[in-house]
Order: sequence, then C-alpha cells, then structure tokens
Amino acid sequence: MEERGIYNYTVSQRDVDFTGKCSPASLMNHILQAAGDDADLNGFGIKDLNMGNCSWVLSRMCTEFNRRPSQGERISVRTWVSEVGRLMTTRNMVVFDGNREQVACAVTQWAVIDIDSRRALDIRANVDYRGKILDEPSPAGPPERIHKLDSEECAVKTVVYSDVDFNRHMNAMKYVEWILDHAPVVRVTESLRRIDINFLKEALLGSRLSLICMEADGVVRYEIREQTAGDPLCRCGLTFS
Amino acid sequence: MEERGIYNYTVSQRDVDFTGKCSPASLMNHILQAAGDDADLNGFGIKDLNMGNCSWVLSRMCTEFNRRPSQGERISVRTWVSEVGRLMTTRNMVVFDGNREQVACAVTQWAVIDIDSRRALDIRANVDYRGKILDEPSPAGPPERIHKLDSEECAVKTVVYSDVDFNRHMNAMKYVEWILDHAPVVRVTESLRRIDINFLKEALLGSRLSLICMEADGVVRYEIREQTAGDPLCRCGLTFS
Repeated sequence: MEERGIYNYTVSQRDVDFTGKCSPASLMNHILQAAGDDADLNGFGIKDLNMGNCSWVLSRMCTEFNRRPSQGERISVRTWVSEVGRLMTTRNMVVFDGNREQVACAVTQWAVIDIDSRRALDIRANVDYRGKILDEPSPAGPPERIHKLDSEECAVKTVVYSDVDFNRHMNAMKYVEWILDHAPVVRVTESLRRIDINFLKEALLGSRLSLICMEADGVVRYEIREQTAGDPLCRCGLTFS
Repeated sequence: MEERGIYNYTVSQRDVDFTGKCSPASLMNHILQAAGDDADLNGFGIKDLNMGNCSWVLSRMCTEFNRRPSQGERISVRTWVSEVGRLMTTRNMVVFDGNREQVACAVTQWAVIDIDSRRALDIRANVDYRGKILDEPSPAGPPERIHKLDSEECAVKTVVYSDVDFNRHMNAMKYVEWILDHAPVVRVTESLRRIDINFLKEALLGSRLSLICMEADGVVRYEIREQTAGDPLCRCGLTFS
C-alpha cells in the first residue's frame, strides 16, 4: 500500500508485552508516528512549525482497540485531518492489519503553541491547510472531556531522563504507560476497549507527580497531578469490555 | 546497503531524548534488534529455538558510543558471530551512519537456555552454526565482568507491566533505562563513552528491586538486586570521557 495518507510499520520486539502482542502504549506510539509522518509530508510537521517558533501539542486523544497485533505483523495507519478550528484541529487514524481488517482507531485533537510563551495560537494563521482537509467522519466518538477526580493518591513518581522527549517535557505516551502500569494487568491485556486522555499541562524533568485513581460507571479514571502545587497535568479514562 | 549481515533502521521520535539525539538505551535496542534479525535470517532466531523448547538469553553486553545519532537519521548495524563455545557465543555489532562513519559498536555474549528449567544448554548441540561464523576480531574489548558491589541502596522499584517482554521477564534494556535514569543527566547526554552490563538472573512481574551504586576509578558501577532475597540480577558499569 503506497496510497496517500497511509503509513506502514512493523510491530517489533520492543513493542510487545509478555503476551507477545503490541502493548496499548506502543500501538498509540505508532498512531502518533503516522500523525507526525503525515504532517511532515504535507509541509506542516514539527520541523516546519519550529521554523516559525511554534509547535504542535497533543491536547486530547481517544483510541479504540479491536485487537492488539502480534510481533512481526505489518500494520498500516491511515490518517487524515477532518476539522480545523481557531484553537484546535482534529486528526483521525485507522489502523489496519495485512488483511485490511481494522485493529484500532483513534481521534486526536491538537493545538499550536508558541515555543517561548507556551500559549495557544490561532491554527489557521500558522498552518496552511489548503486542500489538506478531508470531510469524512471520525472513526470513533470524540475524546471524552474528563473531569477533576476526588480520590486518593495511588502512586507517585519523579519525571526521569527516559520520560522526557524532544519537546523537553514528559512524553504523552509515558503518561499512558504509567497509568497502564497501575491498572490491573489482566484487564489491560485482555479487555481494554478504549482509552480517553486529556493533556492539560506539561511535566518537566525532576517534577514529582501523583497518580489519582477512581472507578465509576464501568470506566476507570486517572488524574496525574504535580505533587506539590496540585495542578492537574493529565486525565485519562480506561473502558474495559 | 543490502549487504549480508547489515540491517538498516531509522532513529524515530520515540528513540530520542530531550537533546533530540537517540538515547543510549534506544541505540542498544536497535543493536539488539539487528542481532535478532540476523539470527532469524540464519535460521537460529528465537522462534527457531523455541521450537526446540529453548531460547536465547543475553548474558553480557558492552556498548561503546562515538556519537548519538539524531532523529530521522538512517543507521546501519553490521553484525556477525565470531566465537561459539559450549555455553557462550559472541556476537559483534558496528553501527554506521549514512556517511559510513562508525557511531557505536557492541560486543554481546549469549547463552541458550531450556525454556522450562531455565538452565544453560550446550549451544553447539542446539544451534547449527555451520558456515555462519566470521573469524574477525570484535570491535571493542569484551564485556567487563563486574563484581559484587558493597554500597547503599539508591533507589527501589517494582517490576511493572511495561517492563516485561515476550520472555516474561524484565527486559534487558529496561535495566539499562532504570540505571541511566539514576545517573547524572548531563553525564549521560554529554560524556557517556561505554556501558558494560552483566545479566545474572531474571526479574519477574511484581518483583521488588533495589539499585545499588558506587563510583571508583572513573567508572560508576550499579547492581540491581531482588530486594527481599538480595539476589543480584544485573551489574553495570558506566564509563564517561
């Protein structure tokens, strides 16, 4: 497949968990890789934006899992932008296996920020989307807005070297990994159906983080806070089948 | 390059640290990926061995870094087996960039174990190496044997879901990540010259681990122990320039 908007990856040894299948965080990593590859190809990738002193930040994401592909499987991610507003744009992804069966899909919402002030900018003034928007519905309901959690701290951690990415903050998928590491393992490997995640604030190297957890209405919700100031950094909901 | 024994990879976004360069653990992951790809191609990969109820385990590894490649760079890993003994075999790797300049090299020593008993087997009785050994010197001195450390615990952790690989134990590179996360960040990103690592025992999901650290003769040495039993699981030495 060399169609426009389709990116191919192989599930490698380091992607798989102890069941031999791609971990949810690794699958989401491939999904985000496709977003980056497609933006680069269309002239509005991170590097293009960096030249104007701005950058993409992921604001919300939901991912639905049909099945988790195995080590060595080739997967194809089809991605397209479906909506562009003043402060937010929506990018969709559908992941197929070699038989063109859907294995997962995702809906992501992105903002453009000024690199120095970290403030959101008008997307349409900074990105040339002409001819790049596809009027096709998203493959899943939009990422859920998750509200403040009132519950006890269930884990703490310090942001370390391996958590931090090229943006100099804790990588979005490292939030997901930390959350899934504190969910019941059997539910993660056998019955995870959907992850909704809201990114609210950056965590920097050395920050101390608290993880808050609460289960209600069949959804397990998490909040990651800066331990001292208490500022929410990320909220997440896991839906199991 | 499509020569025999050469495997090509691209440094991706998730490989790089906050400096925009491939992290030492990600570079070592690519090096081990090449080992796996080459063994598969030669008919003695993990899957081939699994059919005989045995598996490869990494026993010792050293890696020397000339420079860390940047995001988007294509790297080529050349790998060959140079020695096969009864209980240990040596596999070498040299990593080149697009200009055929060496960016890193590694020497690895592997054992074959019985999957059920976890005991070492006679390699020559289980792997058909005919015509696959290259009588060419290793690109670096062999992995150092690191002795027991007598020092204080500097960190603890529980082995979680994201640490565990298809072998159902904590992944070797997760040991490296944990160690580097506790080394001074500036030294890791700016002056890391060589990593020696000895793998002694497996760590399983849920195990509690202690990290011991000691600096002597310009080398910072680490030992990872099972917290309760005190068994050493891994020892590591970091050499800085």
